[in-house]
Amino acid sequence: MNVNQNNTKVGFIGLGIMGRSMAGRLQREGYKLHVYNRTKSKAEELLAGEAQWHDSPGEVAANADVIFAMVGYPSDVEEIFLGSGAILDKAREGAILVDMTTSEPSLAVKIAEAAKARGMHALDAPVSGGEGGAINGTLSIMVGGEQAPFDAVKPLFEIMGENIRLQGGPGAGQHTKMCNQIVIAGNMLATAEGLTYARKSGLDPKQVLKSIGTGAASSFLLNAFGPKMIDGDFTPNFFVHHFIKDMTIAIKEADAMGADLPGLRIAKSLYDKIAAEGGREEGTQALIKAYK
Amino acid sequence: MNVNQNNTKVGFIGLGIMGRSMAGRLQREGYKLHVYNRTKSKAEELLAGEAQWHDSPGEVAANADVIFAMVGYPSDVEEIFLGSGAILDKAREGAILVDMTTSEPSLAVKIAEAAKARGMHALDAPVSGGEGGAINGTLSIMVGGEQAPFDAVKPLFEIMGENIRLQGGPGAGQHTKMCNQIVIAGNMLATAEGLTYARKSGLDPKQVLKSIGTGAASSFLLNAFGPKMIDGDFTPNFFVHHFIKDMTIAIKEADAMGADLPGLRIAKSLYDKIAAEGGREEGTQALIKAYK
Repeated sequence: MNVNQNNTKVGFIGLGIMGRSMAGRLQREGYKLHVYNRTKSKAEELLAGEAQWHDSPGEVAANADVIFAMVGYPSDVEEIFLGSGAILDKAREGAILVDMTTSEPSLAVKIAEAAKARGMHALDAPVSGGEGGAINGTLSIMVGGEQAPFDAVKPLFEIMGENIRLQGGPGAGQHTKMCNQIVIAGNMLATAEGLTYARKSGLDPKQVLKSIGTGAASSFLLNAFGPKMIDGDFTPNFFVHHFIKDMTIAIKEADAMGADLPGLRIAKSLYDKIAAEGGREEGTQALIKAYK
Repeated sequence: MNVNQNNTKVGFIGLGIMGRSMAGRLQREGYKLHVYNRTKSKAEELLAGEAQWHDSPGEVAANADVIFAMVGYPSDVEEIFLGSGAILDKAREGAILVDMTTSEPSLAVKIAEAAKARGMHALDAPVSGGEGGAINGTLSIMVGGEQAPFDAVKPLFEIMGENIRLQGGPGAGQHTKMCNQIVIAGNMLATAEGLTYARKSGLDPKQVLKSIGTGAASSFLLNAFGPKMIDGDFTPNFFVHHFIKDMTIAIKEADAMGADLPGLRIAKSLYDKIAAEGGREEGTQALIKAYK
């Protein structure tokens, strides 16, 4: 497939904060979009352009050459790809299906096998970089699947992201994203514990950040989320409940591989506590509340 | 005190990897050094210049206006400052005593009080930045104590470091360093767990680092020590046993403040295991060995 603005119809399913920013970039580059979202109002801006609305993921798939999905949970991914009348049932032979949701590696393998059996290609391609990365096209895109469809879709990935890598066969993108989330879980734990110690010992935590934020302890999260933790600003960039979903997948996969990751388990248990106390829709920096 | 090369005699006690690099910078800036180290041979390079050797910390103190110490354990700090015939017994009235060892905040308070009772000034000023920072003068220096001696010694700190901050009264430097080490413990856990997952899931961990090392999961340690963990290169930049010392202090202090830091406790227990299995003198990246 030679992807270009004249011949390639692009499907985009899932137009939340991330999805509609990514789809918007494709549209502004001249790609004709076919879109579906559970809540239609979120598609308004795209429909004000030339995007065409469809009433189901299956209908998007029937009308597109490359179909992107960016939904919420693995159960959503399963439904839109493998459900009756859904993407796999409706997409054309030769279509390339790209799931960008953070989801289960084993589900990515299942979708890739089902796609292959129907003469289609599937890639798992979760992203890192958040809303800012989606808006500015600076996402890291971690891809699993075969080389040929990866090469074919790469010009579209390059509109959405900067650090784009095929990490292996089906599921490898999701596994790489799990590595990313495991590191984030530990770094978030680190940030919350360091700042809790600062507060308890009577230091000024913002001054402490100035001393420790530039050296061996520095991390993206320490410097980006540390100040929010100190200020008690829990406005979401990344929802607690989405992070719990990711950690749940990571722990399940790690268990299956026989890998014991105690730091990840501690982080998950603290986030479960935050969620149980009303923090599901807060940003992940709300972890600091688990420390009294 | 107006610190300058003509009038100020500088004592330096403890000439290990860090201490002799820091002392060397002072010497190259023209300061006359008075030095002591448990193993005299480590002072050779300084003595080849104009540094003067003394046979005990007390003798160094008797001959200097500003006395720096960079030793190993809190027990060493206690001995060289508070022991009979040691620094506090021998230093002159008005002398400024600066402990740069990572040590106990409560010991820093004790030394500061003892110094004050004798008409001297004491600062706790642990550093972050490792051997490279010591050689290049780019250390972060976290200081506890009073403003006047801090201001007086600042020109000397500026020869050794870049990010120099008075964080509060006596002990505040050590508390800030504890925050630094707590964050490092969590980030190290994060790095080891992310890379363990990568290996177990059949990914190429070095490729994974390229995907996750630039975004929200990025940290100094992920990018500096991640590759060493993958290669099994445990050459020490920072010894496992020194890090265990730091975490032991942090846990003791956190317990005393009523702060439960489970990520720190997990990290400490894994490092204890590494040490017990022969890794005391390895670098902190040896943590990866705790993950099978």
